[in-house]
Amino acid sequence: MPESYPMNGGNGTYSYTQNSYYQKTGINVAKGMVSEAIGEKLDINNFSSGSNSFRIADLGCSVGPNTFTTMQNIVDAVQHKYQSQGLASKFAEFQVFFNDQDSNDFNTLFTSMPKERPYYAVGVPGSFYGRLFPESFVHFVNSSFALHWLSRVPEELLDKNSPAWNKGRIHYTNASDAVVDAYAAQFTKDMEGFLDARAKELVSGGMMVIITLGCPNGMPYAHLAAGIMFDCLESCLNDMAKGGLLSENQVDSFNLPVYAPSPKEITELVERNGCFSIERLELTNWRTEADPRGDLRACVMHVRAGFESIIRKHFGNDIIDDFFERLLKEVKESFHLIQSSYMEGTQLSVILKRK
Amino acid sequence: MPESYPMNGGNGTYSYTQNSYYQKTGINVAKGMVSEAIGEKLDINNFSSGSNSFRIADLGCSVGPNTFTTMQNIVDAVQHKYQSQGLASKFAEFQVFFNDQDSNDFNTLFTSMPKERPYYAVGVPGSFYGRLFPESFVHFVNSSFALHWLSRVPEELLDKNSPAWNKGRIHYTNASDAVVDAYAAQFTKDMEGFLDARAKELVSGGMMVIITLGCPNGMPYAHLAAGIMFDCLESCLNDMAKGGLLSENQVDSFNLPVYAPSPKEITELVERNGCFSIERLELTNWRTEADPRGDLRACVMHVRAGFESIIRKHFGNDIIDDFFERLLKEVKESFHLIQSSYMEGTQLSVILKRK
Repeated sequence: MPESYPMNGGNGTYSYTQNSYYQKTGINVAKGMVSEAIGEKLDINNFSSGSNSFRIADLGCSVGPNTFTTMQNIVDAVQHKYQSQGLASKFAEFQVFFNDQDSNDFNTLFTSMPKERPYYAVGVPGSFYGRLFPESFVHFVNSSFALHWLSRVPEELLDKNSPAWNKGRIHYTNASDAVVDAYAAQFTKDMEGFLDARAKELVSGGMMVIITLGCPNGMPYAHLAAGIMFDCLESCLNDMAKGGLLSENQVDSFNLPVYAPSPKEITELVERNGCFSIERLELTNWRTEADPRGDLRACVMHVRAGFESIIRKHFGNDIIDDFFERLLKEVKESFHLIQSSYMEGTQLSVILKRK
Repeated sequence: MPESYPMNGGNGTYSYTQNSYYQKTGINVAKGMVSEAIGEKLDINNFSSGSNSFRIADLGCSVGPNTFTTMQNIVDAVQHKYQSQGLASKFAEFQVFFNDQDSNDFNTLFTSMPKERPYYAVGVPGSFYGRLFPESFVHFVNSSFALHWLSRVPEELLDKNSPAWNKGRIHYTNASDAVVDAYAAQFTKDMEGFLDARAKELVSGGMMVIITLGCPNGMPYAHLAAGIMFDCLESCLNDMAKGGLLSENQVDSFNLPVYAPSPKEITELVERNGCFSIERLELTNWRTEADPRGDLRACVMHVRAGFESIIRKHFGNDIIDDFFERLLKEVKESFHLIQSSYMEGTQLSVILKRK
């Protein structure tokens, strides 16, 4: 069973709903690219005439509002394409399948949906590393800022006798090659499962858009702002262990199941799978609209919305507020490092088409 | 917008999950009938070859566990039919669409699903009095103990100048003819919307099973155990108003949006709609396995799981525990009335087929 790492649910101060501005910015950057790909490359004439609705899935949708914006953008672009080809009546109805882990806050997702929406809305609980739909069921798959979550922490990292034992560290940033390799191997395995499942579920001619954390070919993750942020998290946990607030063992056995692949890795995985053509694959600049140099507090809130549940699960409830207060200080102190970090191409956008 | 009356969510003492034994018994009674209808009357050969999965919807599913049992029963019966006709490969995959209002506790539903299930699971938030699916999308619709919830309290009941002003009463049990008529008219309107929506969504040859509260043609609802229970609720609220714990006005403006139709009413509505044939329609006996004469406390807990949220919404949180303690006493005092009530045919089972 894949592990589950839900974003903070509800609608409160630390919720993903209130703290997903970076993801929103990333999605805005991708919007034009997606509309263009739908306009130019979606094979609407080849879809089976047996299905009378156009089915879109958002994998790893979390609780909104970003998923609603993204789905609306896709529906608009597909409708525009049908209209411009005089086929508006062919798919009169849209169905949107909102997917995330069982433990995602679907109650918040469902009660915050736009009341007026041009689609039938459906929630799909389960891990996208396995099958979610029947064969040849969906026409368009989207996944924004979700695939960097591995299905689990690589096993070797928890084995004291393994060269990948990640003592005192919580990620592959600045870690040994054995740790980096273990993470990469887990990503490969997960992504193979993801691509196999989607190859079965997507209709021939259907498209898939993936937006995820990315890293230039061969660049160490420590050069990226996200890597520096992970180092800050690590530093706070180690400080708390030194101060007796946590045990060293707790820190040694904690690792963030997050991986940022390179264009080369994705290309190789897609080619090995063999069911998809790569229509577009590029690292894009995330900085233009949301710059962590601008508002460090907002940046830490965004980290909290995403990582609080996994930290809480491992270290317990009591340390949470203290930890995130320390993190804010730590991030402020690392300001000069973040300022000089590489931030140009850290969002990986991929558009695939089912052969 | 239809009103929303969710069952108690979660998994606690007063939850629907822990207190839906009567519904379970009713579903067991219906099981044989449903399997038989699938075996004899489902037109599996006529379904479009374009769809490669068999889609089942449970409308008003609440939070389980009954919905899981019912869906498993239907999948088993359909699989058995395909196998016995040598068509097992035609629909290799099942998809189950669990529907309830937006405010239903889908989080509990999703996290309590059977891990090993022979279908892809999907949640559909929204009122079944409107459209939930694209045209000709589902093959089988089930709705157990949900359609007796009206979409809203009839408007006239809240108008002091109307003959249907329902002063001192909370239901049409023992009420004036104008009140009974207002409830019946609301049911007619709601059921028309329900049938219109399902006629569009069900494929030709598809089936629909409805199990709901029912009442023999022409019998006053006060003769039924459920009617006596509603009288007990009413009596407790009026006592609390007399004791100054509630205002009289609060009681006057509260009405249970629950209606138990007769076979005649359902028959007329289905015939007027014109899209379905009636394969079976009967009042069945609910008493055999779950008898409120047996365990009054369990019976009141069951009422609490279903009605707590609507009472809480209208009267506030503070009175809830007091109210349900009073209700238990009241029901004990009405024991002789319940004992002599009509309980033979109070579950209405309907099997329809899309023409």
